[in-house]
Amino acid sequence: MPYKHTFRVHWVDTDVAGVMHFTNYLRYFEACEEEFYRSISLPFHDIQRSYGITFPRVEAHCTYKAACRFDDFFEVTMQIHEVAEKTITWEFRATRQKDGKLAAEGFIKCIAVNSEWKAVSLPPKLAKTIQEKGQ
Amino acid sequence: MPYKHTFRVHWVDTDVAGVMHFTNYLRYFEACEEEFYRSISLPFHDIQRSYGITFPRVEAHCTYKAACRFDDFFEVTMQIHEVAEKTITWEFRATRQKDGKLAAEGFIKCIAVNSEWKAVSLPPKLAKTIQEKGQ
Amino acid sequence: MPYKHTFRVHWVDTDVAGVMHFTNYLRYFEACEEEFYRSISLPFHDIQRSYGITFPRVEAHCTYKAACRFDDFFEVTMQIHEVAEKTITWEFRATRQKDGKLAAEGFIKCIAVNSEWKAVSLPPKLAKTIQEKGQ
Amino acid sequence: MPYKHTFRVHWVDTDVAGVMHFTNYLRYFEACEEEFYRSISLPFHDIQRSYGITFPRVEAHCTYKAACRFDDFFEVTMQIHEVAEKTITWEFRATRQKDGKLAAEGFIKCIAVNSEWKAVSLPPKLAKTIQEKGQ
Repeated sequence: MPYKHTFRVHWVDTDVAGVMHFTNYLRYFEACEEEFYRSISLPFHDIQRSYGITFPRVEAHCTYKAACRFDDFFEVTMQIHEVAEKTITWEFRATRQKDGKLAAEGFIKCIAVNSEWKAVSLPPKLAKTIQEKGQ
Repeated sequence: MPYKHTFRVHWVDTDVAGVMHFTNYLRYFEACEEEFYRSISLPFHDIQRSYGITFPRVEAHCTYKAACRFDDFFEVTMQIHEVAEKTITWEFRATRQKDGKLAAEGFIKCIAVNSEWKAVSLPPKLAKTIQEKGQ
Repeated sequence: MPYKHTFRVHWVDTDVAGVMHFTNYLRYFEACEEEFYRSISLPFHDIQRSYGITFPRVEAHCTYKAACRFDDFFEVTMQIHEVAEKTITWEFRATRQKDGKLAAEGFIKCIAVNSEWKAVSLPPKLAKTIQEKGQ
Repeated sequence: MPYKHTFRVHWVDTDVAGVMHFTNYLRYFEACEEEFYRSISLPFHDIQRSYGITFPRVEAHCTYKAACRFDDFFEVTMQIHEVAEKTITWEFRATRQKDGKLAAEGFIKCIAVNSEWKAVSLPPKLAKTIQEKGQ
């Protein structure tokens, strides 16, 4: 089952057009990812401490379908698209709570790097956990 | 010739990994787009006043190649990828000034909407200007 | 009793020093204010619709005592400092949940303006509600 | 003479009220401070490398006088208010270029800390340089 987390559009998230700025969807997608890792008891810092790796982003994509405005609740769902040797790709969907309309959908691709920012293979145990929990 | 504008990574643009947050490249791409329209004497507000249209984003994409850090200068170049009936797609590249390395590249697709946020055809004169100046 | 709301430091909130950027405390203070108004069934848009007023900020102040870092939970408490003829001043405190240390405290002063951004007296009923609920 | 730097209000800086969000003035004040240090050939990283200190903020204050909107140019001026044993306090003013109106003014107080975030005395040579150049 996709992981879900609900967010609220804050005043500072909006722009002069009256809608949430397009880059903030990607920020909330990342915030959802943070919550997911916490929900499986693997906050980023633990991954860093246990495995010596972090996950810089190598690709991000988003399409915008309907605007979210100040005060709107929206639900972000995320699901594994692919766990590859060195990369993890997450799919995200943001749905407006008031009418169930899809607001935005996209993906973020992360790469495992060591402390020198060199790409490394995902530790098999970590890859398996993410694959299983992120389905 | 692509339009070019140079930006600086500010402290607030960075994150705990010591690099510019991935969503800020898209923010600077948009800032470059704003500068482009000013450079052809067509700031967004004039387009709104003259043609009654604005350009919400319908798609954004970015791949990340090399990190920009605090204080780094980076040059953003932008060029028309496509001017369609109702949409404009811009390609962007961010290059680190100190070593000429490509930091990020991507595109942003905008749609012309009227004051009720209904998609409308681009006014031919505006489409022509953007096509010509954005090459 | 002060109104309370708990927030989490997101990755994007941090900077290269590894701590939450100082301006983000004020952003979360404002987010707490938004939640307060919702909690008394008076979201900003309802105030705007019912009374024709909005609350631009005329003053903001914050002192920083201890850093919040990525993943930290912090509790924001807010309480009325003063409801004057045209202004409302809120006091805020952000406390780190893990050790109960005060992270930051400050205030935000808002002014009631009409649709032309002219300062106006607070409607007595609204002033009374805010005074009572915000204590 | 106060140090001056001109900035532009970007789309992402605005909010649903159509004006620059109040926290962004403090962000631009900090950006101005960054430019100042560069202008005297002392970018933050050099201060860190040469003296082993950084400057977290311990206090920030801003009053808002007139709104800046999308596309507005505004000039930030900064000047030393006080160089104390361990702290530096900068005063800032943001002026709208189109009409010369004061938009916002405030101050930011920074403290010198070593690599363990312990407050330390400002190196006399650095204090003197900042005092002289920041007047």
